[in-house]
Amino acid sequence: MKYLLLTLAVGASVMASPLAKQAKGVGLVAIPADKAAVRKLIDHPTNKLTPEKIELGKKLYFDPRLSKSGLISCNFCHNLGEGGDDGVAAAIGHGWTANPHHLNSPTVYNAVFAQKQFWDGRSPDLEDQAKGPTLAPPEMAATKEYISKVVNSMPEYVAEFKKAYGKDVKIDFISITDTIGLFERTLVTPSRFDDYLNGDEKALSKAEKAGLKTFMDLGCTSCHTGIAIGGGMQGFAITANYKYENVGDFKGDANGLVKTPTLRNVTQTAPYFHNGTVWDLQAAIKEMGRIQLGLNVSDKDAASVETFLKALEGRKPKVDYPMLPASTENTPKPNVN
Amino acid sequence: MKYLLLTLAVGASVMASPLAKQAKGVGLVAIPADKAAVRKLIDHPTNKLTPEKIELGKKLYFDPRLSKSGLISCNFCHNLGEGGDDGVAAAIGHGWTANPHHLNSPTVYNAVFAQKQFWDGRSPDLEDQAKGPTLAPPEMAATKEYISKVVNSMPEYVAEFKKAYGKDVKIDFISITDTIGLFERTLVTPSRFDDYLNGDEKALSKAEKAGLKTFMDLGCTSCHTGIAIGGGMQGFAITANYKYENVGDFKGDANGLVKTPTLRNVTQTAPYFHNGTVWDLQAAIKEMGRIQLGLNVSDKDAASVETFLKALEGRKPKVDYPMLPASTENTPKPNVN
Repeated sequence: MKYLLLTLAVGASVMASPLAKQAKGVGLVAIPADKAAVRKLIDHPTNKLTPEKIELGKKLYFDPRLSKSGLISCNFCHNLGEGGDDGVAAAIGHGWTANPHHLNSPTVYNAVFAQKQFWDGRSPDLEDQAKGPTLAPPEMAATKEYISKVVNSMPEYVAEFKKAYGKDVKIDFISITDTIGLFERTLVTPSRFDDYLNGDEKALSKAEKAGLKTFMDLGCTSCHTGIAIGGGMQGFAITANYKYENVGDFKGDANGLVKTPTLRNVTQTAPYFHNGTVWDLQAAIKEMGRIQLGLNVSDKDAASVETFLKALEGRKPKVDYPMLPASTENTPKPNVN
Repeated sequence: MKYLLLTLAVGASVMASPLAKQAKGVGLVAIPADKAAVRKLIDHPTNKLTPEKIELGKKLYFDPRLSKSGLISCNFCHNLGEGGDDGVAAAIGHGWTANPHHLNSPTVYNAVFAQKQFWDGRSPDLEDQAKGPTLAPPEMAATKEYISKVVNSMPEYVAEFKKAYGKDVKIDFISITDTIGLFERTLVTPSRFDDYLNGDEKALSKAEKAGLKTFMDLGCTSCHTGIAIGGGMQGFAITANYKYENVGDFKGDANGLVKTPTLRNVTQTAPYFHNGTVWDLQAAIKEMGRIQLGLNVSDKDAASVETFLKALEGRKPKVDYPMLPASTENTPKPNVN
């Protein structure tokens, strides 16, 4: 009995298959099976997650009144029911304005694992990121003062901020967007691929394992690696020109680098690429092979990689749709113009 | 013991206060306390509610892919987190177009209790109503064929339709919008006022009871009555001109009649009136007194009525935010133009 327990305890590492070892060797990292370990991984270094902050952040995330029009919440472009994005090529915001650089809304699911936020990586974390779209004229089009006024006008929000941060909390643009970021940290979706890396050999089918091998052998993991399976900064169009690079005027960061999107739930986040120009996942795989790896990926290999990518569809956290505090006479009136 | 049971059983009617009697006398009706009785009241006469139909209807209600742009769900204008409406004067839809008649989105909560749907009452029930905004160019801007194609393109939706209606179900515009209507039937919000009418004398405060009395004595219940506390067709501007009647070109139905909005959750559904011109609830109460009842409602009476209306804030059903089926290669592409 003692012997059996010992075997079980070390089983996962001792028994890891050569394929799982290869995956870990190229830097692929599982979302831990242990919930406390996940919490540690996603937590903010100083503004620690609590149930009160998360619940408040969820309300703010779903509240369209943070936008100038009163109609566009964070969830409008990062829809938690739809893979965490909006399913259109370029984000649409206030006044039905498309993103001026033709940028595609990235998924909010697992965004916490990315090294940087935004396509040009200009933001270090989700709390900082949330300060962008709320103010951007073609997105939520609000101002810091407006957002602060909206939230402070509702006693229920004020009470929840006090409950979350103590009675002396300053409810302003910073604490509001910080709290949205904290909620977003919790949006992680462990998949069968994680189960596999965590030691469950049966979590992936034979075809999915073959797809994982193709994925690694082609070299996709040179960018799509880590726990985000992406999320770092990379040069775009390394060996060839991207066919649709002139859709929009986005050129990456100061060094021409672009954030690698996560591949988690990628089957649910079409259209693909920073400018949302490609709808078909196999076409996207081939295009990436051509321009980033200088490879002519065969139909068979593209299909095999796609089979693996399906295993990255994650288990989404359950979201109780929040019933928002009622506006009061002090709540600024929305302006759709 | 036998005696005691008998007393309890008939207690509610025997003990009803004069005020509760007056309320029932002017036609105010409670949402029943008994869930089975509510179900009976809200159920469709032939297309009976089942958990499968309700869950499917909820997904469709929240699915923006039923719109041409892929961005506007039913919930966009009838936001369940926001009192069941959108909080703007005139509904905004596809292409950021305001409702061409400057009509305000009514709340979906308790809409099942209305005798007619739409401001001009042109629709007999929620299933029929759902066929309007989905197709209207300034709202969701889709076509019957488009919506049918979208839903049929996703195996998960097809499976859920079969589960709900049997394997021979025809998944088309009619069955899709019918199912949305069925979900909407379940959106009822019992309030403390219902508890009061159902026999709990302590459910309303003294000030709220006084407000109810003012509400009835002024004559508000000549239109705002029944279980919907509204929901019937009435002439607009009976004794005086409505100050903002020229905002928009809406003139009611063929007989100039307009649907009386429900007052349930009215504190959460500003701005008021069919054209959303009035934000302040007391101002709305006074304006209604002036034009419908020919009364100069005092500040004191308007405040008293408002106090009663707050007691109509209902207990909302818990909504698990639906995780929608993933689009497939057969799903028609959205078009934001």
